[in-house]
Amino acid sequence: MKCIASRDNADVKHIVKLMKSTSYRNEHKSFVTEGTRLCSDALESGINIEKAVFTEKAAKKYSDLYKKLEKASKSTIILTEKLFSQISDTKTPQGVLCVCRAELKKLRIEKGEVYLGLECIQDPSNMGTILRTAEALGVKGVIMSRDCCDILSPKVLRGTMGAAFRIPVKFSENITDDIEKCRSKGIASIATVLHENSVPITEISEADKKSCILLIGNEGNGLKAETVEKCSIKAVIPMTGKAESLNASAAAAICMWELLRR
Amino acid sequence: MKCIASRDNADVKHIVKLMKSTSYRNEHKSFVTEGTRLCSDALESGINIEKAVFTEKAAKKYSDLYKKLEKASKSTIILTEKLFSQISDTKTPQGVLCVCRAELKKLRIEKGEVYLGLECIQDPSNMGTILRTAEALGVKGVIMSRDCCDILSPKVLRGTMGAAFRIPVKFSENITDDIEKCRSKGIASIATVLHENSVPITEISEADKKSCILLIGNEGNGLKAETVEKCSIKAVIPMTGKAESLNASAAAAICMWELLRR
Repeated sequence: MKCIASRDNADVKHIVKLMKSTSYRNEHKSFVTEGTRLCSDALESGINIEKAVFTEKAAKKYSDLYKKLEKASKSTIILTEKLFSQISDTKTPQGVLCVCRAELKKLRIEKGEVYLGLECIQDPSNMGTILRTAEALGVKGVIMSRDCCDILSPKVLRGTMGAAFRIPVKFSENITDDIEKCRSKGIASIATVLHENSVPITEISEADKKSCILLIGNEGNGLKAETVEKCSIKAVIPMTGKAESLNASAAAAICMWELLRR
Repeated sequence: MKCIASRDNADVKHIVKLMKSTSYRNEHKSFVTEGTRLCSDALESGINIEKAVFTEKAAKKYSDLYKKLEKASKSTIILTEKLFSQISDTKTPQGVLCVCRAELKKLRIEKGEVYLGLECIQDPSNMGTILRTAEALGVKGVIMSRDCCDILSPKVLRGTMGAAFRIPVKFSENITDDIEKCRSKGIASIATVLHENSVPITEISEADKKSCILLIGNEGNGLKAETVEKCSIKAVIPMTGKAESLNASAAAAICMWELLRR
């Protein structure tokens, strides 16, 4: 197989743009996963793989993965080590990436499960950690407002450890509509907010804990007033320190845990 | 007051090195806090401030803070906007920073409290989040191995939201010795580890929860075998997702919460 060495190669240019630009990803309904772990995760999760990209060394070193990805993808290309490290998003690239179709698991909201609602989460590290934690703890799906950071960016995908491929996600034009839909199905909606009517997260009833959507807001500003207003429950994490505030991903982890711990 | 415009100024060179280099910080026993929030936090926490640094605009805009810091610090200097943004660690600098003495709160281990032990935490975002969460939830102090990332780096300090100034910290040459000391005082030591003898974190006795040190290991490799061996309890966070793993800061948040929730 011919080994591509030039950044001017059309495939390479496409990959670089997919890695860098949210709008380009949206336009082409594709994204890039890098590294053996994420590429295996994408494959195992049934993500449609358009192109497998290896260095020669990586094709030998990870020959099992190479065979699987070559079989699953429409085409496979080989890049020189130098070119691969130029386009890679990591400091020590493994020499493996895939171009994937942006078709994530569809979300269905049902009573008796715990869901997560994210409003305007901006930091890719927080987003990655939140999705990873949600999947690990057993959250059934995530509704996120359109102004959240792109979950298909290389940095978020790395942080999720593949959870983005496995947990159903819905991108919402209007999160209050989704809260209303939950309400009509008898699902509690829990706003995490410091509010005069807020209850400690530990005091939410067992019935509500078992069937709810937990809403987490923007890192700096929290949830929007209209979102808080729409929720059936306002809850806080009781804190004792002087800071009395938590990073969004730590707050999300504690709330999800509190709802799902048995 | 004369306005400094040159990167060759001795004070400016000192500040830049303090922001960039852990060894330089150790050598000079000083560090830099940037921004109104962290500088106020340092002042309120009784941190010894060696030098206050403002732009002219910031000195006017934050005149209360300027007066307080000018009074508290040994000297105050003014930088041009251009020079300040060149040396700043943030994208939109506020024009305020302080050079501080690296004298953090001393840790005393006592029965009846919850402590945190960190072994080889490498990621500054994780470290910042962990310290912020620890303080917010009421952890009484942190013991950290020398191979953890430097908590006085600008990135960690930003993530802590000032918690690093308020929570007592001990840097440990040998964390197993500290675990042994805890044991001799009747304090439980809890290793977070996937081990054949691990119990769910929810099943730790109330007595142990009230008086313990919780140990969190390196992001990739977890705790060292000898550290796990030394601990009186091995515990896991029960998980249901396919990933079955959590980011170190999310795992730490959930475990601290579980130990401290009342």
